[in-house]
Amino acid sequence: MRTISADVNSLLAHYQTQINERLEEFFDKKVEEASRISNYPREVVIGTKEYTLRGGKRLRPIFCILGYKCLTDHNLEAIIAASISLELMQSSLLVHDDIMDEDELRRGKKTFHIVYENLCERRFGKNKARRFGENIAIVAGDLLEAYGEEVLAKSSFKSDYVKRALATYAEIVKKVGYGQILDITAERKGSFSEDDILTIHKLKTASYTIEGPLHIGALLAGADEADLQILSAYGVPLGLAFQIQDDILGLFGSEEKMGKPVGSDVREGKKTLLILHALERCTEDEKELLTKALGNERVTVEEIDTVRAIVQRTGSLDYSKKLVAEMTDKAVQAIKISDFRTEAKDSLINIADFIGNREY
Amino acid sequence: MRTISADVNSLLAHYQTQINERLEEFFDKKVEEASRISNYPREVVIGTKEYTLRGGKRLRPIFCILGYKCLTDHNLEAIIAASISLELMQSSLLVHDDIMDEDELRRGKKTFHIVYENLCERRFGKNKARRFGENIAIVAGDLLEAYGEEVLAKSSFKSDYVKRALATYAEIVKKVGYGQILDITAERKGSFSEDDILTIHKLKTASYTIEGPLHIGALLAGADEADLQILSAYGVPLGLAFQIQDDILGLFGSEEKMGKPVGSDVREGKKTLLILHALERCTEDEKELLTKALGNERVTVEEIDTVRAIVQRTGSLDYSKKLVAEMTDKAVQAIKISDFRTEAKDSLINIADFIGNREY
Repeated sequence: MRTISADVNSLLAHYQTQINERLEEFFDKKVEEASRISNYPREVVIGTKEYTLRGGKRLRPIFCILGYKCLTDHNLEAIIAASISLELMQSSLLVHDDIMDEDELRRGKKTFHIVYENLCERRFGKNKARRFGENIAIVAGDLLEAYGEEVLAKSSFKSDYVKRALATYAEIVKKVGYGQILDITAERKGSFSEDDILTIHKLKTASYTIEGPLHIGALLAGADEADLQILSAYGVPLGLAFQIQDDILGLFGSEEKMGKPVGSDVREGKKTLLILHALERCTEDEKELLTKALGNERVTVEEIDTVRAIVQRTGSLDYSKKLVAEMTDKAVQAIKISDFRTEAKDSLINIADFIGNREY
Repeated sequence: MRTISADVNSLLAHYQTQINERLEEFFDKKVEEASRISNYPREVVIGTKEYTLRGGKRLRPIFCILGYKCLTDHNLEAIIAASISLELMQSSLLVHDDIMDEDELRRGKKTFHIVYENLCERRFGKNKARRFGENIAIVAGDLLEAYGEEVLAKSSFKSDYVKRALATYAEIVKKVGYGQILDITAERKGSFSEDDILTIHKLKTASYTIEGPLHIGALLAGADEADLQILSAYGVPLGLAFQIQDDILGLFGSEEKMGKPVGSDVREGKKTLLILHALERCTEDEKELLTKALGNERVTVEEIDTVRAIVQRTGSLDYSKKLVAEMTDKAVQAIKISDFRTEAKDSLINIADFIGNREY
């Protein structure tokens, strides 16, 4: 795996640099636009720039570029410029997500609403500072969504292609919305079925992170229905594999490689296929231990070890690993038999292998 | 004015019926779409339908239709279907606005986040029910925005036209966002300049309610830059007139005709041009009275009368009325000298006169 991993990393890094450059240029224009109105919007736009550029793997724009490259190699500058629409959508959804989850940190720095809560406290006083922070963040999210739309609508591709890409863009936002409603309601209700979790993964990860971006890129290259179907046959299983691998790493990954404390999924009580599967197959005693640990903010290292042991004993870890391998394989097969351009195919196959075997 | 008013009312009613029918059809399809996922998203979509259809003048879709009719009379069915995108955008922004303002009522019924706060209390308990309500409402707003985009992106007009219309759609959301940031920050800071207020009116009312919708309609009919400029020369001043007239009615209007308690603007401490102008021209004693009344939730009828008297004495009422008349006139002139289609021109002129003279 070492070579593929190195290849994929350099492939990702290559695009990340270009995507970040385009994002920077885009935001600088928006800062200028907002500053023609007044200093307040200007400050907020600078905030959205910082928030978007502070990190992130840029997977969505990269899949958009690769979807395009499945069909053509012309006009790569234009597709890289258009691909940032997906990162702007992502940024919009993250800003809103952070409010909903009441998270204080995102990528190691303050979430948007917390930045503005603090700013309010400093400038205008503590009274209702959280409300102010959340309000600015709601608008900032709406703004970022409009930015994403704008980038696509103003891209230089054929109008027929852009029209279809924008319909898909709206479709992605819609699916994430449906998935989010299911997620927060089931969470609040405290009961998830395996079906619920798979549906949420499909809507919030598979469609949003992989299939949707691939489609948008391909559509901007003039893809037909058959092309899109191949990309779905790759993107949907890979998206599920990606999410399940994420859950595995969240419990068994190396803290060092992940860059976040292992066991935080347990602490947050995140409902994963891994846990659900274990809950359905464990003894009553084990169930009690799991239930006690999940969502417990003061869960101990020993308790997390117990969770790990139960997940292993019940075969849940093996089951999940097998699913990841199967799904990754399915994705790879779908793309292999396509007649897409070789370079893009290779990249997509490498990325799939990388996702199926990643350690972070 | 009686005849124009009757004409305008029947014109508005004619379109309102058709727009509402299209909205109903659209939402029914979305309910079906969401119910294929699960019952939770289905319920939320039913909620967005009820929220959108419970009232509203449908001014934005109507301006969209009229913008289109300035250039052509073909394919009216398609423009009516596309025009609902503007009502979906409006609904999205209102759902988010209600959260920001912590409003409990919208069009005489519960706001979206309150509906879901109550539902949470009934089903899942009182703990963090407001958070749950706001979270569902944030997602519902995002969903409605995606719906609006989808309607345009899937409309049957020439792709070139749709592409430009979608860029304008994003532009409107962006302008409202910038205006909203300026509004909530200046509000929190407690200081508005006349410039601030005019900028907010331009971004949040003129562009959003009149100019933007006219442009989208015209673009879907293949408008060129010159056409758009004429529509701006009509829409921007009329939007300002509309807002200032709104402020006048908020203080001096008939409670019966308005359908909301007069003086609520005073109670909410709404910063209007009317008040700002009076504050700049009144005596120190009057200033004290005004400041005491503004934003005072328990303001008395007598105090509201005093506010009215000061606004009149300082010439602020006359100044605002004059502005409304001038702006309306400017709008009418701009459209009169255009070579747009006569029927649409007449409608736009009648609507302008109606707005300049409306009592509700």
